[in-house]
Amino acid sequence: MTDQAQEAADWWATSIADIQPGEIRLRGYAIEDLIGTVSFPQMIWLMVNGELPSEDEAKLLELTLVAAVDHGPQAPSIAAARMAASCGLALNNAMATGVNLLGDVHGGAGQQCMEVLHELRAAVDAGESPTSAARSLVASYKSRNAFIPGFGHRFHPVDPRRDPLMHAIEHAARDGIVEGYFLEVALALEGVLAEGSKPIPMNVDGATATIYAELGLAPELARGLFVLSRSVGLLAHAREQQLDKVRIKGPLPKSIPITYTGPPPRTLPPGEPAGCCP
Amino acid sequence: MTDQAQEAADWWATSIADIQPGEIRLRGYAIEDLIGTVSFPQMIWLMVNGELPSEDEAKLLELTLVAAVDHGPQAPSIAAARMAASCGLALNNAMATGVNLLGDVHGGAGQQCMEVLHELRAAVDAGESPTSAARSLVASYKSRNAFIPGFGHRFHPVDPRRDPLMHAIEHAARDGIVEGYFLEVALALEGVLAEGSKPIPMNVDGATATIYAELGLAPELARGLFVLSRSVGLLAHAREQQLDKVRIKGPLPKSIPITYTGPPPRTLPPGEPAGCCP
Amino acid sequence: MTDQAQEAADWWATSIADIQPGEIRLRGYAIEDLIGTVSFPQMIWLMVNGELPSEDEAKLLELTLVAAVDHGPQAPSIAAARMAASCGLALNNAMATGVNLLGDVHGGAGQQCMEVLHELRAAVDAGESPTSAARSLVASYKSRNAFIPGFGHRFHPVDPRRDPLMHAIEHAARDGIVEGYFLEVALALEGVLAEGSKPIPMNVDGATATIYAELGLAPELARGLFVLSRSVGLLAHAREQQLDKVRIKGPLPKSIPITYTGPPPRTLPPGEPAGCCP
Amino acid sequence: MTDQAQEAADWWATSIADIQPGEIRLRGYAIEDLIGTVSFPQMIWLMVNGELPSEDEAKLLELTLVAAVDHGPQAPSIAAARMAASCGLALNNAMATGVNLLGDVHGGAGQQCMEVLHELRAAVDAGESPTSAARSLVASYKSRNAFIPGFGHRFHPVDPRRDPLMHAIEHAARDGIVEGYFLEVALALEGVLAEGSKPIPMNVDGATATIYAELGLAPELARGLFVLSRSVGLLAHAREQQLDKVRIKGPLPKSIPITYTGPPPRTLPPGEPAGCCP
Repeated sequence: MTDQAQEAADWWATSIADIQPGEIRLRGYAIEDLIGTVSFPQMIWLMVNGELPSEDEAKLLELTLVAAVDHGPQAPSIAAARMAASCGLALNNAMATGVNLLGDVHGGAGQQCMEVLHELRAAVDAGESPTSAARSLVASYKSRNAFIPGFGHRFHPVDPRRDPLMHAIEHAARDGIVEGYFLEVALALEGVLAEGSKPIPMNVDGATATIYAELGLAPELARGLFVLSRSVGLLAHAREQQLDKVRIKGPLPKSIPITYTGPPPRTLPPGEPAGCCP
Repeated sequence: MTDQAQEAADWWATSIADIQPGEIRLRGYAIEDLIGTVSFPQMIWLMVNGELPSEDEAKLLELTLVAAVDHGPQAPSIAAARMAASCGLALNNAMATGVNLLGDVHGGAGQQCMEVLHELRAAVDAGESPTSAARSLVASYKSRNAFIPGFGHRFHPVDPRRDPLMHAIEHAARDGIVEGYFLEVALALEGVLAEGSKPIPMNVDGATATIYAELGLAPELARGLFVLSRSVGLLAHAREQQLDKVRIKGPLPKSIPITYTGPPPRTLPPGEPAGCCP
Repeated sequence: MTDQAQEAADWWATSIADIQPGEIRLRGYAIEDLIGTVSFPQMIWLMVNGELPSEDEAKLLELTLVAAVDHGPQAPSIAAARMAASCGLALNNAMATGVNLLGDVHGGAGQQCMEVLHELRAAVDAGESPTSAARSLVASYKSRNAFIPGFGHRFHPVDPRRDPLMHAIEHAARDGIVEGYFLEVALALEGVLAEGSKPIPMNVDGATATIYAELGLAPELARGLFVLSRSVGLLAHAREQQLDKVRIKGPLPKSIPITYTGPPPRTLPPGEPAGCCP
Repeated sequence: MTDQAQEAADWWATSIADIQPGEIRLRGYAIEDLIGTVSFPQMIWLMVNGELPSEDEAKLLELTLVAAVDHGPQAPSIAAARMAASCGLALNNAMATGVNLLGDVHGGAGQQCMEVLHELRAAVDAGESPTSAARSLVASYKSRNAFIPGFGHRFHPVDPRRDPLMHAIEHAARDGIVEGYFLEVALALEGVLAEGSKPIPMNVDGATATIYAELGLAPELARGLFVLSRSVGLLAHAREQQLDKVRIKGPLPKSIPITYTGPPPRTLPPGEPAGCCP
């Protein structure tokens, strides 16, 4: 190729996929070798991480993917996907609508919690005790009136997904599958948050973040893997909505009119603004 | 609840998720029972289909999820997600951008191919032979100058994903795991398309459609499940792009200016249009 | 450039914008000549249609852009954008979420109505009377139990946007600004739909479609121009939501639990499915 | 209404739109009064700002809306919308795809520049001279190796949209239409950035930010208004692409294969990972 064409080819360079006529290699492996040999969670890991996981690592990842698939139409992502389906959108467009909503606030807690775990870990590595590091962090969040990501839930007093996930990672640490390096600070943080009059237990994002940190995944991936999991719920709900007869589904049934809080009825100022288009 | 509040509650009714404080049930199963017990493909099936699959059914589904994860940045969905990441979007927004592109043309072939298989099956059930039904269908597409969805590939002379998928479903039919009811017409169609001077072999969408049809899934789900699979590639590529330094990544490097084919340089007509905003 | 580089340059060829270092020409006009000289509606027309409109044409377009900016949070597009803003998304992502919902059902009526007007016009040009053509069309829709796009409104008995838009186009036809060619069949159709026991008056989409048809715009543009207009409401509502304190805004307040209609609580079948990840 | 129903009604409360059967009021004005009386830029201002602008204010807003409509397919937002259209998406979905990309990096410079202008203004109000405040700010950005938003352009040595916009706002300040309060610091900043060996002139985002700051608009709106403007280009390009024959348009023509930089071809480790689905 000429220099310019080579520059174009390099502009889109990737280390993930090598696609040639009749050939698809992902991270170096031929697709026909992967199909039927690796599980879907193994494939996910290979794609985002570059190498195949051990079976045990893949199983830990699989737990988190199963845990986060849905939280019903009360979640704005699910509600938006259902509204999209009621507007005649195809399933991919409805799913994209929901995925788009999984931003910093709705889908970002796992990523943020991983950053917190890294921060705690750095303090402990610098000599602090886990509990003392956690106390400082909680105090700092409290002073800013901020939530600690991965703890507490706007809906569940206790998140039922916490226990099965944390038991699995504790088991894995005991068995030497993971080091327990981040688990230590996660549990210390949970302990400190249980000290007050109103304990704030770990939620699904906190438990997932602990697992991902132990597996050595980058914090950004927490959000991405959550998206993969929640996309299952988005698909199921968008499909259920497609089978329904409601068209242009608003948030409330028509019997409940939306409250208006703006200025009362008024007329345009006379002669002003000058009519643009008489 | 009052009638109006009940109407609001019913407006968002769903058979998928029952969410109560401290409790998450999906299709009737408690989430803490599902985590660690069902695989991710089993969970996907449960969510979209309503009941748990057999292990064999889940494995067939898993093959298709592994097969379609990526086709590199040449695919517009992947390229768009990478451009999105280069514009500073979070991973969920970048993934949503890519998912949105998996429309009728880029992600719809599986769904369309399933509809073709149902059509062929109806003809065969009405007394035609599979090959004769396929011949009629091919002739009809040819006369409209239309592609038959699930066959041929704009890039691969032979799609390397076809064989492992079709061998699995043929094996499953032999073992009585599936009936082979749609497999029969899919193979007949492939046979007819191999008769001409330029054979048009089955591609990943055709093979996937055959498996989904055998599994009794609705055609619309073919697109949704493809989205779940391709979302893995979208995540991997958006993440790779995040780690790159290019900002506001256009489709071509700056060294290649885009061709302009419009009117030559011109000046505004004098006095016309009347200046709106001098 | 070499052949390959030229091919890349041509791959993205466009007749709309010629961008060179220090130079931006749109449809041949230098951007510095356009700024301050043409109005925003004139610019919109130039961009989508290729040539500058007359002042009168631009004013007719402007009416429709003003008319459709908002329909409150009851519209799923607006509700979705507000939910997106409550999830921490930036305004562009919140607006994109809303725009995505303006599909065939929620934002497509204008385009579909334009197609109906073209169909009626073809019948009249072939010799039928406008009323007779409209009667046949209404009968055909009735037999399919289908809505006629651009007529009737799920919320308004009479759409308050119909009259100012239709008066403007009738005035324009009287003044020879437009031909009245499509207006004739639009009014005939409205007349036929007023004959029954329950009249179905023209709505904003029908009136807009009539104006766009008179202006010679392609039907697809009706949807695109509606998107431009409704984006204003999406921006205003997403911004209002940003200033609110609610985070992760679901469709209903927490006091109203969502109805569950699925299977009752159940336990996993014993020994089945085989645990994937113990 | 009962308490619960009232709570649902209030959950979606808005000060923007009051929609009743047969009635649409925006910010208190009846839609039938607005159509034909206010211009599209006046309507935009009313919706996002709550009150009608003066004619002069609306004209300044209009300049910025005209200025930013397009930057050709080299912009990733435009390229993504065109790729979306080539995948068979409707215009609203294609436009949403492009709007989604106008994030912090691609569409956020105006908002960020407004924040810079507010910061400079605060320093000047606290007693510093405009030039001295600008020098401190430039030094701080330089030390972080960061771009100053609104200055310099990756493509244009001099942005041709700067002059007409800045002349208009300078004129407006001279005429007392605006105070010139933010203009003063914007020009001081531009002056400081011209002092070095390589001047960094103001671009369209900087000029637009200056105008919006003078008009008293919130910084967040800069991004929203840019989206409204660029949506015009998105529509024009998506429509142009629809009329083209290319399907599934990737970023490069097929003659240029994408560079692969990952691991060389390799086979799966024997016996490992344990086959999931034989």
